[in-house]
Amino acid sequence: MDRTASRVAIVMGSQSDWPTMQAAVDTLGQLEVSCEARIVSAHRTPDRLHAFGKGAAEEGFEVVIAGAGGAAHLPGMIAALTHLPVLGVPVQSRALSGLDSLLSIVQMPAGVPVGTLAIGEAGATNAALLAASILALSDDSLADRLRAFRARQTGDVADRPVA
Amino acid sequence: MDRTASRVAIVMGSQSDWPTMQAAVDTLGQLEVSCEARIVSAHRTPDRLHAFGKGAAEEGFEVVIAGAGGAAHLPGMIAALTHLPVLGVPVQSRALSGLDSLLSIVQMPAGVPVGTLAIGEAGATNAALLAASILALSDDSLADRLRAFRARQTGDVADRPVA
Amino acid sequence: MDRTASRVAIVMGSQSDWPTMQAAVDTLGQLEVSCEARIVSAHRTPDRLHAFGKGAAEEGFEVVIAGAGGAAHLPGMIAALTHLPVLGVPVQSRALSGLDSLLSIVQMPAGVPVGTLAIGEAGATNAALLAASILALSDDSLADRLRAFRARQTGDVADRPVA
Amino acid sequence: MDRTASRVAIVMGSQSDWPTMQAAVDTLGQLEVSCEARIVSAHRTPDRLHAFGKGAAEEGFEVVIAGAGGAAHLPGMIAALTHLPVLGVPVQSRALSGLDSLLSIVQMPAGVPVGTLAIGEAGATNAALLAASILALSDDSLADRLRAFRARQTGDVADRPVA
Amino acid sequence: MDRTASRVAIVMGSQSDWPTMQAAVDTLGQLEVSCEARIVSAHRTPDRLHAFGKGAAEEGFEVVIAGAGGAAHLPGMIAALTHLPVLGVPVQSRALSGLDSLLSIVQMPAGVPVGTLAIGEAGATNAALLAASILALSDDSLADRLRAFRARQTGDVADRPVA
Amino acid sequence: MDRTASRVAIVMGSQSDWPTMQAAVDTLGQLEVSCEARIVSAHRTPDRLHAFGKGAAEEGFEVVIAGAGGAAHLPGMIAALTHLPVLGVPVQSRALSGLDSLLSIVQMPAGVPVGTLAIGEAGATNAALLAASILALSDDSLADRLRAFRARQTGDVADRPVA
Amino acid sequence: MDRTASRVAIVMGSQSDWPTMQAAVDTLGQLEVSCEARIVSAHRTPDRLHAFGKGAAEEGFEVVIAGAGGAAHLPGMIAALTHLPVLGVPVQSRALSGLDSLLSIVQMPAGVPVGTLAIGEAGATNAALLAASILALSDDSLADRLRAFRARQTGDVADRPVA
Amino acid sequence: MDRTASRVAIVMGSQSDWPTMQAAVDTLGQLEVSCEARIVSAHRTPDRLHAFGKGAAEEGFEVVIAGAGGAAHLPGMIAALTHLPVLGVPVQSRALSGLDSLLSIVQMPAGVPVGTLAIGEAGATNAALLAASILALSDDSLADRLRAFRARQTGDVADRPVA
Repeated sequence: MDRTASRVAIVMGSQSDWPTMQAAVDTLGQLEVSCEARIVSAHRTPDRLHAFGKGAAEEGFEVVIAGAGGAAHLPGMIAALTHLPVLGVPVQSRALSGLDSLLSIVQMPAGVPVGTLAIGEAGATNAALLAASILALSDDSLADRLRAFRARQTGDVADRPVA
Repeated sequence: MDRTASRVAIVMGSQSDWPTMQAAVDTLGQLEVSCEARIVSAHRTPDRLHAFGKGAAEEGFEVVIAGAGGAAHLPGMIAALTHLPVLGVPVQSRALSGLDSLLSIVQMPAGVPVGTLAIGEAGATNAALLAASILALSDDSLADRLRAFRARQTGDVADRPVA
Repeated sequence: MDRTASRVAIVMGSQSDWPTMQAAVDTLGQLEVSCEARIVSAHRTPDRLHAFGKGAAEEGFEVVIAGAGGAAHLPGMIAALTHLPVLGVPVQSRALSGLDSLLSIVQMPAGVPVGTLAIGEAGATNAALLAASILALSDDSLADRLRAFRARQTGDVADRPVA
Repeated sequence: MDRTASRVAIVMGSQSDWPTMQAAVDTLGQLEVSCEARIVSAHRTPDRLHAFGKGAAEEGFEVVIAGAGGAAHLPGMIAALTHLPVLGVPVQSRALSGLDSLLSIVQMPAGVPVGTLAIGEAGATNAALLAASILALSDDSLADRLRAFRARQTGDVADRPVA
Repeated sequence: MDRTASRVAIVMGSQSDWPTMQAAVDTLGQLEVSCEARIVSAHRTPDRLHAFGKGAAEEGFEVVIAGAGGAAHLPGMIAALTHLPVLGVPVQSRALSGLDSLLSIVQMPAGVPVGTLAIGEAGATNAALLAASILALSDDSLADRLRAFRARQTGDVADRPVA
Repeated sequence: MDRTASRVAIVMGSQSDWPTMQAAVDTLGQLEVSCEARIVSAHRTPDRLHAFGKGAAEEGFEVVIAGAGGAAHLPGMIAALTHLPVLGVPVQSRALSGLDSLLSIVQMPAGVPVGTLAIGEAGATNAALLAASILALSDDSLADRLRAFRARQTGDVADRPVA
Repeated sequence: MDRTASRVAIVMGSQSDWPTMQAAVDTLGQLEVSCEARIVSAHRTPDRLHAFGKGAAEEGFEVVIAGAGGAAHLPGMIAALTHLPVLGVPVQSRALSGLDSLLSIVQMPAGVPVGTLAIGEAGATNAALLAASILALSDDSLADRLRAFRARQTGDVADRPVA
Repeated sequence: MDRTASRVAIVMGSQSDWPTMQAAVDTLGQLEVSCEARIVSAHRTPDRLHAFGKGAAEEGFEVVIAGAGGAAHLPGMIAALTHLPVLGVPVQSRALSGLDSLLSIVQMPAGVPVGTLAIGEAGATNAALLAASILALSDDSLADRLRAFRARQTGDVADRPVA
């Protein structure tokens, strides 16, 4: 296992998911957690999916964040192929606003878990934060950075709304 | 390609889908279309899924009927792996009554189609009938049996409700 | 049966469904499958519906793709009138975003199947692909074109998102 | 037009809708409005549907009440075939509790109306009451019976709940 | 009862419902059915509601069309106060797109019916058409105009979509 | 205003709502807040509704709790008729499990508020607690009883689940 | 308790809720009820939440209006921490249009009530009106102002829609 | 930090959540991961919630699994109070079947993540498996046990359904 590799894989079903998933990359960047963004389409590139899922641990990834929309099979299929923690981000879909994405990701049967975050950009940001909190369990420096991030976040909440 | 093989594969995610999917087997039986029922779990047996999807055409199957519930990834993942027509049956789930199954199956992105039927047993029956109508395009004898089936079905509708 | 006729009928409930259903025509065009687009309104032209459904097979069509929105009765009513495979496309409706269209099409009772695709343009594209995979069962040349289409599609997926 | 004929047709998609639609028959009976219950399946007996819709006015019916469940096309298709007022009753479906039935009936496009009542038995009762209020517009005796029915109904509401 | 009065009352909960309900006025105008549009807010003018409902028949109205959005109580409350047929139009609401309006109108308990049409402008148009079909039961001239309207509507459906 | 009168009116649309609304009576009883349960059907007894709403303040009530199911118009219509605070309880309906009741009650337009509680018995209990917290603003003794109730409730939560 | 303090606290989860919650401030202003708007984020400032909830009564507030969107925990958590009446406003969320906000606020378990208003600005306005009706129970002058407000509101409803 | 302490905290809002959450305890037991089940009600015991959330890391817990139903605030509020990874289990609710629980847990705003699992018992099982996969990142022995668990699970899937 190559510790110089990225710790978090951020995979998405298509280029169109990037505006959503970018928030995960940005947030991990702020926390100085190395990550790598890839496109892996469960439906259009099933072999790439199979290879990625099977090899994710050996590539050195410790957490996988997977975002997809509509009949969103990517997070669950990766979870079926790896023992790493997999976090799912439901991308907001056009017709059903991401309700389809959410149910397709979160309603996994017993045996293969996907930790699912909120629909859209907030979910991508939070997937990064959850990944960081997972990695921080054995990385005191990251734990400090995460605590600082959270403290800043708390401090940034104004007391009163600005008209 | 082995013409003595079954023409329709009926796959399901788990034994618990059998009470639903049995209707597909029964209906194909009535139409004298050979079929074979298997359990292929997208999540618990991803290698079996991969092998099945890749090999379905070579096994001699012409149509695949796939039933699954909840975050139902089986039909879409098979469709990603084969060029055969894939028909999906949303199995009624416990909490969300199959709405999750339905959206997980039907909302496939452009490029990889799943012809989706109704939630539950009616959907399984109809998947069989749709498979038969597909096979009947190049099988006049089956076309006759299908027409007879439909005629009987029409004839069986009583004129008045029985109190 | 006239083999010079179009193989796939693409019918829609109104002119307003054309921007959605055009994707089916385009996709069949790419696969060199002959098709013909018509307007058949289940509600405003019920006689045309009846005639179309009854005569679709005799006109030489092998698959019918039907798109409609709201209380979308067109696909199911055609399926009631023909033994050809019928594929349904739920057009995105204004108030309910196509959830009404989807349920009106997919929840057919046992006995009369409609293979339903996703809401909107993706569904229209996929109806064409599913129709092609059905026709490819007895058309090796089309099977080759379909495989090539799918291979190109796989090849077109970039490895990494572009910022 | 035969004035000894029934004034209201109560049609339903299948025998299984009878427990729901019976409430319409009972209510019309209490109001002494003649009616006739028939099974007309939009999907399994499309010719019967076509004939019924086309001939309903000539048979002497003045209002049609149509009940169906799931992808419920019966009320809308009858409305497409007749100029009589059509009232729709969404029968409670198994998986989706009648939400599919409701949307399939009520979301008719502009041009062909179905007056839709509540899901289930309450809807069947109310379809009968609405039919009666329509007929009462030109039937003073029925108007009196309807007023008496409503007055009794008001009188039957107790002041306090009984523990 | 004053036969020179308008035959159909079109009431709405607020001025903001007018862009929707105008379609009912326009459609009745095309059919030469006299009507009158009023604002009656169930919540802001409950006394006006009570007076309108109680007096609608005496004012000479034969059918009431009521449109409202959100927690839409207007159609049901009018139906509680009159024996005239009441048709309800769910106005598309901002947050929930009229699903709240629809359920608030259609799910009436047994005893007090509202014939409910589709969400939005299509529903308003159809409420007018249904009102006309009700009045046409005892008005042969209107029946002729309605048949002509429907025939024109059928004739206006083109055979093929225009690109 | 008669201070010996009940302080809280608990009204419901029908006897069938009593098993739900009883929880409100019981909870107010535990808090020694006088209350009175009545049946007022918005649809079957609109005059009783009008009289109740107009007279509730003069009868000495200070808060009105109204429960209803389906197209639940009772809470909103009472709120239209009185200046007293009105709390609404959506009763669980048969087909749609109270989602219709909830939306019919909570989605009131600006100008006439109903403070809405949860669907079913929990909502009835909480309507009583909210009514008590409102009355406690000017009743120190009730404020003490409410604080004690809440403290007992907190104390009753065990530390660990019992297998 | 400091009677010169504001009587109503208007808290919201973030600055982005202000365009919605401003309607509550404006409405209380029209009724001359003192209020104070604050940002209290249940998730980003949990200590501020805890302190606010525990201290709201001692600060002199009599009613708390809390608005939040998505997984909206603010109203319920404040209700858990205070005996004051808490009114909740579901802020319209991006993906699910406030349905998530609504269910997160209204579906409180028995024991801790939140009086919930409509999604969005109408709900904020109505929270203010409900707060005013609560305070008016022991403030005759406010009761007069509220009655005048409601009378003006009734008077402002035009008789006919303006084209 | 006390390494003899339990590694995973399993908290639930009430005793009634135990039949669901027990599956998490059982699954962790099979994987020999120490855990501790507690009742912490966000609404009835807000101080216990605050203390638990603030102290969870110091108690030695590494992952928190929180289950709750309805307006399910427990997982999100714990996540607001700790930097540990928090996994949420939506407990199936009575009226809305857990859709309310799911949305209340998963739709967290950016900044405070909850990794959400499926509604009900499957979600509780999967929360345990996800917690194990998180802990396995720095515990090779657990990683082995988890791999064995998954392998057994794969092996237990029969090839064919049993009639």
